[in-house]
Amino acid sequence: MMNMMKMKMSMKTKKIIPFLAVLVFCCSTSHAQMGENPDSAFIRQLHEKALTQSTAYPWLQHICLQIGGRLSGSPQAAQAVEYTKSMLDTLGLTQVWLQPCMVTHWVRGEKEEVTATGSVHTDKYALHALALGNSVATPKEGITGEVVEVHSLQDVENLKEQVRGKIVFYNRPMNPTRLSTFQAYGEAGDQRRSGASVAAKYGAIGVLTRSLGLRLDNHPHTGALAYKDSIEKIPAAAISTNDAEKLSAMLKAEKVKVHMRTNCQMFADAPSNNVIGEIKGSEFPDQIIVVGAHLDSWDPGQGAHDDGAGVVQSMGVLQLLKNSGYKPKRTIRCVLFMNEENGTKGAAQYAAEAARKKENHIAAIESDEGGFTPRGFSFEAIPNILPDKFAKVTQWADLLAPYGLDLSKGGSGSDVEKLKAQSTLLIGFKPDSQRYFDYHHTEIDTFDAVSKRELELGMAAMASLVYLMDKYGL
Amino acid sequence: MMNMMKMKMSMKTKKIIPFLAVLVFCCSTSHAQMGENPDSAFIRQLHEKALTQSTAYPWLQHICLQIGGRLSGSPQAAQAVEYTKSMLDTLGLTQVWLQPCMVTHWVRGEKEEVTATGSVHTDKYALHALALGNSVATPKEGITGEVVEVHSLQDVENLKEQVRGKIVFYNRPMNPTRLSTFQAYGEAGDQRRSGASVAAKYGAIGVLTRSLGLRLDNHPHTGALAYKDSIEKIPAAAISTNDAEKLSAMLKAEKVKVHMRTNCQMFADAPSNNVIGEIKGSEFPDQIIVVGAHLDSWDPGQGAHDDGAGVVQSMGVLQLLKNSGYKPKRTIRCVLFMNEENGTKGAAQYAAEAARKKENHIAAIESDEGGFTPRGFSFEAIPNILPDKFAKVTQWADLLAPYGLDLSKGGSGSDVEKLKAQSTLLIGFKPDSQRYFDYHHTEIDTFDAVSKRELELGMAAMASLVYLMDKYGL
Repeated sequence: MMNMMKMKMSMKTKKIIPFLAVLVFCCSTSHAQMGENPDSAFIRQLHEKALTQSTAYPWLQHICLQIGGRLSGSPQAAQAVEYTKSMLDTLGLTQVWLQPCMVTHWVRGEKEEVTATGSVHTDKYALHALALGNSVATPKEGITGEVVEVHSLQDVENLKEQVRGKIVFYNRPMNPTRLSTFQAYGEAGDQRRSGASVAAKYGAIGVLTRSLGLRLDNHPHTGALAYKDSIEKIPAAAISTNDAEKLSAMLKAEKVKVHMRTNCQMFADAPSNNVIGEIKGSEFPDQIIVVGAHLDSWDPGQGAHDDGAGVVQSMGVLQLLKNSGYKPKRTIRCVLFMNEENGTKGAAQYAAEAARKKENHIAAIESDEGGFTPRGFSFEAIPNILPDKFAKVTQWADLLAPYGLDLSKGGSGSDVEKLKAQSTLLIGFKPDSQRYFDYHHTEIDTFDAVSKRELELGMAAMASLVYLMDKYGL
Repeated sequence: MMNMMKMKMSMKTKKIIPFLAVLVFCCSTSHAQMGENPDSAFIRQLHEKALTQSTAYPWLQHICLQIGGRLSGSPQAAQAVEYTKSMLDTLGLTQVWLQPCMVTHWVRGEKEEVTATGSVHTDKYALHALALGNSVATPKEGITGEVVEVHSLQDVENLKEQVRGKIVFYNRPMNPTRLSTFQAYGEAGDQRRSGASVAAKYGAIGVLTRSLGLRLDNHPHTGALAYKDSIEKIPAAAISTNDAEKLSAMLKAEKVKVHMRTNCQMFADAPSNNVIGEIKGSEFPDQIIVVGAHLDSWDPGQGAHDDGAGVVQSMGVLQLLKNSGYKPKRTIRCVLFMNEENGTKGAAQYAAEAARKKENHIAAIESDEGGFTPRGFSFEAIPNILPDKFAKVTQWADLLAPYGLDLSKGGSGSDVEKLKAQSTLLIGFKPDSQRYFDYHHTEIDTFDAVSKRELELGMAAMASLVYLMDKYGL
């Protein structure tokens, strides 16, 4: 560290440094250095290959720029199935297959229109809006109603009949003081998920929700809502954080009416597929280690961080292990789940088939928090599973620490979570979370927002943990 | 961790979660929680205030968008001096002052023109190029010469007279397998810094250098060269990584001539200023702790990551400590150094005056590696200083670890390094390095490339370390 920093410093100054001193260019090597622990050497090799030989970034480029947003049931989702299978077919795996599943099929339709008009300032003001996923549409002519701003579901429970005939505006921001942006997301997300049915219970005609993002900007964030079965379904849309601030400011000064028109539609479940590839284990082929991510994405952007990054990282882990000449003892399986965003039905199908075939999944890693610099892994705290397995895993902490990877107890991911009944060690890959909710579920979740190096380092981190679990078991 | 991940998971699924369970919204608080260690509580408070009350991001917006690139001696550099002083004046510090210094004054002039023509493919091909900082210009009509590609200074030493009359093209890429991009920069940087004089020694007429970036793109990276006094000064320019690849491919197939025309000029040193503000210590006012960064930047972009981010973080540390009601025992001083990029003369002036006044700088932190998520601090390994002080600092590791901050031995920064003679503990703030060299010294080092949260977390990290050094001494 010291020497390289000195180099940086002197380079930026005019100071004459020893002039002809040619810096020794230490070539990267895939051979263990003298006396290096073999596990350290192999993990280093995985990182070097990830940074120089992986095709994960071109795969992501194709998924984002040639296919784009790929909501379950869409032609793009079908293209993503076909493309990722065809790429897995090139890797020399033991087998690659499609696993049919039925998935939620919701379509956004024509662009949403949401406008606000004040009782004093009567000019129409157009808000940046996206219908929430799985929402019903407004009637063709739209709906118009007075806006009531609230900050929680409980606020609506308190207002009760005062929201009848009105449009409820949920405006509790994500808490910026949370170091983990996922914690802030978790704390604010009930508004998007459950806000419509809570408001409908008291006769509201529609819902607007502040976008779940920490930044002030003009990009609305979509995402799924869940209606309560016994309550009327009312239309719901997210508005950008800037528009939420503006609408709230208007409401402090005057009464505001909103006109909203959404054109989305829920169809019957559609046929689709999970995409699966595996390297069969040489000693314990019945013990399966999954690396997975979700192939579907929301429609406004390209699904780059969410979750194209996880998809190509999961594929890339198998490519890396193959290209390193590693022969796994256990079966290493890449699973690309369909329909995580608005149904999780691909994951449910995968878990059901695993149970039917009595497959033994010893561990499953999910990458669904973006393609950012890796910070570690979290291990789901299933009481009767975790203590022994976590103790084993933490023995490897010193091998992973040089790559900035911490091991902690926490959550995993919504797809692999379906394997909980199997006593699988469920693992969440944790990249840096600070910028994830700038892009999440928006039109700016695009290929150019993903750094090649950060993506590749995440893949290498995942491959390293897979290698250790495979070599030493759990 | 677990609960929030569960929330995230269920939120993204259609699964009905307990419907009316209102998530408790834990308000952030600036009061110590029951039984919390007072240092932990204060460091938490610094982070919360950084994420909610700091004006560092608006300052950066002004510096980038209202002022822009601010090379030493330029009107923009003078505007940056005036603006940052005026903002420090609003903070209620003990004193704010300008420290006059003479600085390098180099001006790029009219846009560079660099074109390549093959002996077979004779169409002119325009390269994306930027003259290297401190370079001499070509004659007005430009220079034309055959291109010789090399990969090191040593290659030129071997070729000797074979480069006479030619344009030497240094094309050794940064090593992508280095986890620290600064290490890769250090290893490749001799080409930019010393390439011109090495080539001139054997009669070369000009130099092109592959840009010091890890990504393949069209943005050339400028940066300073240093001529050796006794050798003729020849013009040098950086070309984009894409153009370096293309030129190299051409050279494999045919002879290539390059025509280059640069319009830069070195003037006599110009008057400028370092900007300084401090909170006087209540118990040990003679012990000074510096937080610093450099106010000048290269001209093609806005100097956002390099080093507008460090500037507003250093100012923001004083704002944070003031707004937290903290009364430092020691003197906390923010120093904005002029002329780091192509002379380091502001820092030299600061160190000279400190020596003249017999000031006692116990520690100095520099932020000059971008406004990315903080990863820790490195402490410069000055043999007779470091062991005892580093041992003291590492006692605080557990207080900083929750924020993902590691403490290591390493380098500091080119400005604070000038204080080495004072036995000062020199500290480099270390943010995540993966994307820094995508922006460094280019036209895309702009305000929108900096994340508000990442910038603020870095500032909070710096403030936390300053707090601990102030409270416990070194």
